[in-house]
Order: sequence, then structure tokens, then C-alpha cells
Amino acid sequence: MLNDFGIDIWSNNNFIIEEGKLKLNYKSKPSLISLVNSIRKKDYKGPLLFRFPHLIEKQIDRLYDTYTKAIKEYSYKGSFNAVFPLKVNQYPTFVKPLIKAGQKHNYGLEAGSKAELFIAMTYNKNAPITVNGFKDKEMIHLGFIAKKMGHNITLIIEGLNELETIIDVAKETKLQPPNIGVRVRLFNSGSGAWAKSGGIDSKFGLSSTEILEAYDQLEKNNLCEYLTMIHFHIGSSMNSIKPLKNALKESGHIYAELKNLGATNLSAINIGGGLAIEYSQFNRTINYSLHEFASDVIFTLKNIAKQKGVEEPNIFTESGRFISASSAVLIAPVLELFSAEYEAVHLRLKKKNPPLIEELNELYKDMKKKNALEYMHDSIDHLDSLLKLFDLGYIDLEDRSNAEILANLIIKKAISFLEVDDYEELKRIDNKIQEKYLLNFSIFQSLPDFWGIKQEFPIMPITHLDKKPTRSASIWDITCDSDGEIEFDPTKPLYLHDVNLDEEEYFIGFFQVGAYQDVLGMKHNLFSHPTEVNVLFNENDEVELEHIIESQKIIDILEDIDYDTNEIKAILNEKLDKDTYAILEKYLYDNSYLKTTWS
Amino acid sequence: MLNDFGIDIWSNNNFIIEEGKLKLNYKSKPSLISLVNSIRKKDYKGPLLFRFPHLIEKQIDRLYDTYTKAIKEYSYKGSFNAVFPLKVNQYPTFVKPLIKAGQKHNYGLEAGSKAELFIAMTYNKNAPITVNGFKDKEMIHLGFIAKKMGHNITLIIEGLNELETIIDVAKETKLQPPNIGVRVRLFNSGSGAWAKSGGIDSKFGLSSTEILEAYDQLEKNNLCEYLTMIHFHIGSSMNSIKPLKNALKESGHIYAELKNLGATNLSAINIGGGLAIEYSQFNRTINYSLHEFASDVIFTLKNIAKQKGVEEPNIFTESGRFISASSAVLIAPVLELFSAEYEAVHLRLKKKNPPLIEELNELYKDMKKKNALEYMHDSIDHLDSLLKLFDLGYIDLEDRSNAEILANLIIKKAISFLEVDDYEELKRIDNKIQEKYLLNFSIFQSLPDFWGIKQEFPIMPITHLDKKPTRSASIWDITCDSDGEIEFDPTKPLYLHDVNLDEEEYFIGFFQVGAYQDVLGMKHNLFSHPTEVNVLFNENDEVELEHIIESQKIIDILEDIDYDTNEIKAILNEKLDKDTYAILEKYLYDNSYLKTTWS
Repeated sequence: MLNDFGIDIWSNNNFIIEEGKLKLNYKSKPSLISLVNSIRKKDYKGPLLFRFPHLIEKQIDRLYDTYTKAIKEYSYKGSFNAVFPLKVNQYPTFVKPLIKAGQKHNYGLEAGSKAELFIAMTYNKNAPITVNGFKDKEMIHLGFIAKKMGHNITLIIEGLNELETIIDVAKETKLQPPNIGVRVRLFNSGSGAWAKSGGIDSKFGLSSTEILEAYDQLEKNNLCEYLTMIHFHIGSSMNSIKPLKNALKESGHIYAELKNLGATNLSAINIGGGLAIEYSQFNRTINYSLHEFASDVIFTLKNIAKQKGVEEPNIFTESGRFISASSAVLIAPVLELFSAEYEAVHLRLKKKNPPLIEELNELYKDMKKKNALEYMHDSIDHLDSLLKLFDLGYIDLEDRSNAEILANLIIKKAISFLEVDDYEELKRIDNKIQEKYLLNFSIFQSLPDFWGIKQEFPIMPITHLDKKPTRSASIWDITCDSDGEIEFDPTKPLYLHDVNLDEEEYFIGFFQVGAYQDVLGMKHNLFSHPTEVNVLFNENDEVELEHIIESQKIIDILEDIDYDTNEIKAILNEKLDKDTYAILEKYLYDNSYLKTTWS
Repeated sequence: MLNDFGIDIWSNNNFIIEEGKLKLNYKSKPSLISLVNSIRKKDYKGPLLFRFPHLIEKQIDRLYDTYTKAIKEYSYKGSFNAVFPLKVNQYPTFVKPLIKAGQKHNYGLEAGSKAELFIAMTYNKNAPITVNGFKDKEMIHLGFIAKKMGHNITLIIEGLNELETIIDVAKETKLQPPNIGVRVRLFNSGSGAWAKSGGIDSKFGLSSTEILEAYDQLEKNNLCEYLTMIHFHIGSSMNSIKPLKNALKESGHIYAELKNLGATNLSAINIGGGLAIEYSQFNRTINYSLHEFASDVIFTLKNIAKQKGVEEPNIFTESGRFISASSAVLIAPVLELFSAEYEAVHLRLKKKNPPLIEELNELYKDMKKKNALEYMHDSIDHLDSLLKLFDLGYIDLEDRSNAEILANLIIKKAISFLEVDDYEELKRIDNKIQEKYLLNFSIFQSLPDFWGIKQEFPIMPITHLDKKPTRSASIWDITCDSDGEIEFDPTKPLYLHDVNLDEEEYFIGFFQVGAYQDVLGMKHNLFSHPTEVNVLFNENDEVELEHIIESQKIIDILEDIDYDTNEIKAILNEKLDKDTYAILEKYLYDNSYLKTTWS
């Protein structure tokens, strides 16, 4: 059976396999390889980041449609509203299509820093803006100015001092205050890797004591009318829905209590993010559907409103990962397979070999299914001994090479005999037999979450899908860093194709990279953001590649870290003849990734 | 006793505490706070990165002096050479002082990418250049051009295809080849967090079989004379010296074998990096001295050379962390202490309280040493029950606030009674009582290794050192990310001072940040590289602050991620009156960190 690399699990029908190629399941259904080729034809080498605005729109529509349906189902009286948290992706090539796609729903933006607030103030139309994160007086003043510009903006306070600053700014500027929200610190923790955001020792939010204090402050300063929202966030990418239910109860009661204290304009609960997307290509890891999620929110809040006799709150959500992750795909060319090292043809057996080498040779020849495991163990012992002998000067480099080759041949032969339940054994040796695929990209730049939090991403070749992949792979990037490698658990190996790169190209796609990976990208070894392009479709459903932004030129990277690039050029120019310098300067104006062509 | 924050452990006498201040132990011994104040006087707010070129020089001198001494001790005939791996810090404010400081030793550079090779080719004087990492034809061609410029450059091949490319470039360009090195894949793994670099399944290096193959290729193409170096790297920041000894034996024999095969110009073993520095402020984690390290290298190589009858190899090292880490210090202002939330003064007890609240109140009043633990457990149970009652709508927000306050008061009181050996208990509650210090910096930008690999860094206040720090702290950054927090193990708490920020400033220093942290910095929430400055001393030993580079302005950050900043300004200008726009534009030209002043 052919390998579908789990697209049924993670791709949400965004992609299909046809004629051995991975294709976009949209409009004219272009294959990813055709997109790659049309970019590379323009001489853009290295990794490519494709953004698919239609997949942003799809997720926004799914979000609104599901909540609208649930609101109808429960005859819920509050409205549904959503904002996109800019921290998840601030790039204009993402944000502009996002705003366009969200306009029909009045989809808004959330800002967590001054730079993000500027983006929201500039490009948001009439949709809501929420502001989270720690704020100084300047940022709060910016919020007042945004209000003056006509934005529907809510400053969500993370601590009492921010409220004091709001009061100060109101007095000092005489500007009308924006809406005020209060981030509440809940005791009901989230689940998943990001669960720390919730809980009593959370980084964010006001305790009950502080909420009461805040309300007193608002009253004292005649600002109660501006209190419109309470906000919580129990951790992004929740794999289970239970913590959400608990947090909803807790925040719902806080909302109702504040209403009953007299917060008449308080009308919304902002439930933050938390909607997960599927990153695994091996098994489903999320135990709820979007519909269940929305129904739980509405059902819980409706009940509390009824119990406490308050109006049903409007709902705000701030899901970023759910909206953005699937909209970007990174595609990197395979530069080399490090696979052919240990083949019998390379043996340099002598007339007379050290006894252990002779024994290895015998083991290799005599191995059968029934003795495979035993012989394999023996061979590993022999290899260890032979390496020791080399370190002590008793055997030479040719002997050592023969030992490496024979041991590897034996291991491979043994594996062909091994059963699935020899798991421990497999685990022990798998790393040694995984084929290494060297890819022209940087894991630190393009998959920072893999390095930082061991985030899985769906990975698959975009061609050859009509052939069975046979090589258990590990993936190397081109950084000088041993962390620049993606290894796979032997119980969930990634099989790739055995390709001859002299004759054919082979590209690997990394999926769900639209959330966080752009802005967290690190310039390890000075590899910068990959060449990116937006894939649009015209009225005839044909592909239109827009906004190709090439990966930075080397000279620009050096300028970014504050080198004087004129000095660099002057020094190099001085030491070289004109023709050689011309070549050098050409290289200086190339991007930093490896080329596969010589020109 | 006062807390010295472990400076005896980690600071290598670079810093001293005097008059309650942390001072540079050099020349006029300026206090760090005086440096901070002179920068902030110029209106640079936010985190500050200080670079100390004299500490780069100190480490280079230590390295050369120790090896020179060991070479003399053993009458070793090879020479000692070292290069700095640029991947560890490519910033010109670091690299230029490094080159200057290393000139007397002929200290060279190592490049792992084309961009880094350009830096080396431009700024290296006559010292050696080594080139590691995966190379395309362009990069190899650059190596030939560097050779033509007069550089003493060695291309270290990571695979056979790179050797083929060298042969191709030699034929096609008729240029004289640079020196060729071979990275060998060793079986003896390193230790420490980066140990993956070694071992048979390592990302890097040629197997014995490939080394023999490479040698055949060199012979066939008459290039043997260019083979000058073998290279290995068993992992950076080794905490133990044993793996190094094993690797030295292994590589020493490979060197000798190649010599005996006829590699007459092979003269050097490059042992890569691996020299650790002390990152812990709580206990020493490195079990060897630099002198032991150097002696082991020389002793082992000398023995092998003798055993195999070959000349003693020259030694190259590529330690980056050891040279650079101590040369940079990050200092961030504390913006706020989140500590006063749960004080008795905030209690809103009613005439009649829910029974569990009354019980909490009793527990608090009656607690004594002998019942402290029991009462604390009871209070936590009560708090859980009360929170549950709130979620079910049985108690109101004031009750909940009272519950939070009383439980916290009880816990704090209990802790004052607890003994050190109540460890498990302490662990259970410590997170709940750690005081949160909010600092004006981004962990993602300035301490990426903390996020990615849980790297510890020495952390301490730079003033108040004549007062006992009393608050067990956790440190928050200003990102909207719950990972932006440094918590401390309750067995190794960080105690900070109880300061009143309305009356005094309080700055926290992060040490050993000169290696990797600059280039791996992530722009989470669009916070960019902090304001940096080089601290030099004039002939009168007085401080001279050079190369102040302010953290990027918001508008430049937006331009960097490809926003059209003219468009941003035009849109904002259109929607606002002139005066308000003027304020807005001022903010747009500020850096992205929080201000503590209103202007």
C-alpha cells in the first residue's frame, strides 16, 4: 500500500494526492511541485514558503459558521466575535489577506505590543481590536488615539497599575477612554504544552481580590461605563476540552458577579485562544471537534447567565493557531542523501584480516532468520571491540572501515528478518540505520518550535507519491548545529523515497507552519527567512503568484546585524582583481542558502 | 549572611561586589549601575546589552597561555592554533574587538555559511580561516578566492561530494586550491547537552570508509598535498573530559594512519570546540580545568604520534562559547513586582461569611509551629472547596477573594514555620508564593537558549547587594507568552530584594550571554535586539562607551518584516489631526520596549 503521510489526519482536505503528486485541493488544483517549479524558474533557490490566503479564509469561515450555528441551536442571545492575535503572525503577506478574508465577518485583530498595535491601528477597518500584554503609558495612550481614530478598541488590563495608567491618561489627555477589559486569573488550568497560561501562578491576569479592587477604582473615577469585557486564556493548543469547561464556569461567574455589582456595560467574555490544530501525521491528538468546543462555550455561559439572572454575554475568541497554521507550507529541496556509505562494494578486505573481521564476515554470510538477533548482537560487540583495537593502535584504518561496513550490513540484514514486536531492539539500532536527508533549509529559521518545544509538523515529499517510500529517514538542515536534525521515533518512522538526486529533484514539504514560525525564526549561521510567495487564484481559477519576497541577500543580512557593508565591499575590492571581485560581489548579492546549480 | 549570587562560581573574577554594587573587576572598576545610568541618561530605555572587549581578550589569552604552557611541559613539537567559530557571535560589535584582541596570537576565524565566510574574508588579517558546514559550489569557490586573496584558509569537507566539488572548481577555475581538511565521524560520543555532534549517527563527518575513499580521490587528482587537517567536534560545552580523551585517541590514530598512507602535508588535528564555561550560579557543573583539558590533548596526541612513528600534529581548536560567553551582560529594569495581592488589608470579610471562610480565618489565627503543616493542608483543601463553590454559584466574588487571601496568608505563615527538610511540601507550594518580577525585556529575544534548551544563566541584581534579598523570585518578561517566565527550582531559589519601584530603580543582570544569544534572538511580539554598547577604557583607565546601537525603532521593525512604512504613515496621518499624528509618529520612531517614563 502507498503511504499517504497521514493527510487524512492533518490536512483537513486542504491537499490531495493525485498522479503521484501532492496537490492543492482548491480551484484548478495545482500540484505543489508546479508551484515550486514556477518559482525556481525565476532563479529563486533554497527553501520556499508558500502562503495560501484561501486557507486563511476557510478557517475564518469555519470559526464563524460553527459559532453561528451553535448560537442558533441554543437560542443564545449574545453575539459571536473574534480577533486574530497578531503575535502568531505579524507578516504583511499574511495579515493583509487575513483582514480581507475576515471583513465579511467583521473579524478583528489583537495586539500584544506597541509594534503590533500599530499594525492593528493602521490596517484594521471597522472590526474590534483588543490589546493584551504588559502596557506602558505610551501603549495606553496609543489605545486612546486608536479610539479617537474611530477604532472599536478594548484595552485589557493585566494588572492594577495598567488601570491606574488608564485613569492618568484619561485625566491628562482629556481623550475619551477606549473600552476596558480585565484579564482574570483562573484557578482552572489548561491542558497541553502551553497550559502554564492558566492557573493561580499564571503569568497573566488579576486575582479576585484585584478584580474587586479594579472595580472600586473604576467606580471611584466614574469609568465603570467603559468596563465591557472580561478575558481569560487557559493555554494555546488545548488537546482536551475539559479545562475549557472549568474555566468557562469560573469566568462566567466572575462576569455575572461583576454585572450584579453594577457593571452595566460589561457585555462580553473573551475566552482567548486554545483551539488546537492537528500537527501529527501519525495519529489524531485532539479529542474534540470545533462544534463541540463552540457548543460547550455557549451552553456553559447560557446556564450561568440563567442561574445568576444576567444577560447572556457576547463571546470573543482570540484563536491564532487555528486560523493561521494551515495557511503556510514550507518546501525545501533535498540536497543529498547520506546513505551509500556502508555498502559491500566498499569493503577493502585483505588477504589476512584481524580475526574479529573474519568473524564479522562469517556472521554476515551465515545469518538466517532464527539467528538474526543473536548475530546482530554479536556483530555490535565485535564492532565495539574493533573500534577499541583501532583506538589502541592494533588495527589499521582499512580494518576499521571493513568493521564499520560489515557491522552495518549485518544490522540491515537482521532488520529485514526482524518482527515488529522486536521494538526495543529496533529502537536501539534505528538511529544507526536511518538514512540522512540533507535539506536546503534551516530548522532554526523555519521550524523554531521544533527546536524550542519539540513541536511535530506534518512532513512529506510533494512528488513520488505513486511510489512506495522505502527509507526510514532523518532530516538534516544545513546549519552547523547538531540540533539541526529531525529524527523520528522508531515506532513512528518517516519513510522517504530512495531517489537519485543526479537524475531527479526531490522536495520535502513541512505543513502547518503558518503560526509563530515566521516571527520566531532564528538567524543561526545567518540563514534568514526563506523566499516566500502568496498563491492566489484569478477569476479563471488559475494560479497567480503574488508578492514574491526573496530570502535576504547576504549583504543585507550583514547590514542587519550592523556591519558597514560599504566597508566590506571596499576591503574585498582592494584585495582582488576586478574580475574576481565581480564574482565575489555577485555572491554577496545572492541569498544565503545553498545553490544546487553552478553559474 | 549576604547573598553573593554565586559570583565565586561563575564570574571568574570578572566582577566583584563592593559597596552593595556589582562592579567590573577591571581598570577603574566601574559599577554596572553607573554604566546603566550613563546609557539611560541618553534616553535609551528598555534592556541593555553591555559588551566587554577586555573579557574577550582575557579568554583568548587564557586559551593560548594554557596551551603554550602545556606544550612546553610536554616538550610537544606541534604548534597551537585557534579560530573563533563565527556562528557563536557574528555581530561586528563583537567580532571586531575579537580580531583586535586575538592579533598577537594570530587567532583566526571559522565560518559555517557563506555569510560568515564573507565576514572572515573581509576582516581576518593573517590568521587561519577554517570553513565547516555544508558547502555548495559557490561557497567552495569563495574558499578558492579567499586563498587567492592571501588567506590561510582550510575547507573542511563534511562529505565526499564536497571533495568532488573542490576538484571540479580547481579544474574549472584553474585557481590554486585552499587547504583541505576532513571532518571525521567518531564513534566516541561527547557528553553534555550537545553530545549529539559526536557518535556514529552524527550529523557531521566522514566514516572510515569515506575517509579512505576521500584519500583515493585526492591521490587520483594529484591533490594530496592540499590535505592538511583532520577535524572532529564531539559536542559543545562538555561538562566532563572523558569523551574528549576517547575522541583524541580515535582521531589521533586516524591522523597517523593517513600520514602512513602518504598524506605528507597532513599536519594538524582540529579538535573543534567543547570547552565549557560555568553557567550555574548554584553549584559548579564542570569537572575539569582548562589546564587539564590542554594537557590531555597534548599528552594523548604525543603518545599516539610516538606509537605510530609520525610527527606530532599541530593542534587547532574552535572554542566559541569559552571565548565569547562572558563578554556580554544583559541588564533589564524591573518594571513591577506582583507581590502585594494577598495581604490581610484587602480582606472583605462580611458580618456573616460562608462556614469555610470562617474556618480559614480560625486556621490563620490559631496556626502554631506544631500544627503548621496540618493547617496549611487544611487551608488548601478549603480553598479548593471554596473555588468549587464559586464555580457552582454558591459563594460570591468577595467570598472568593477572601478565600484566596486567607489561604495565601496561611501558606506564608506556615512557610515561616517550615524546616528545610520539608522539601516536598515546599516544592508543592513554592510556585504559588514566588514573587513575580516583571522585567522590561524579552526572554525569546535575549535568552533564546533558556527557551530552547533550558539553559541556565547566572542572574543577579546589580545593586542592593549590601542588603539581604528576601523574596523567592520568578522572572517575567513582557511578551504575551506564558513561556516568557524564568522559574526557579525550589531547592535552588533565586532571592531578590523587596524594592519599592516608586522610590528606587532595580536592575537585574543576566550573565554569560555573549555566546549564541545575539543571533538566535527571536522577534516574538516584535521585540527586537536590545540596545547595545561596547565598554572600553581609555589610557587613564576611564570608561568610554562606544558603538551605542539602539534597539530598533518600531517603524524599522515593521519595515524588516516587509511592511510598506510609507503606507503605514499615510494611513495613520489621514485619519488623525496633525497634533495627534505627531505624537503617534514619535511613538513609531521609538524602540519597541516599554518605557518607564511619560513624556
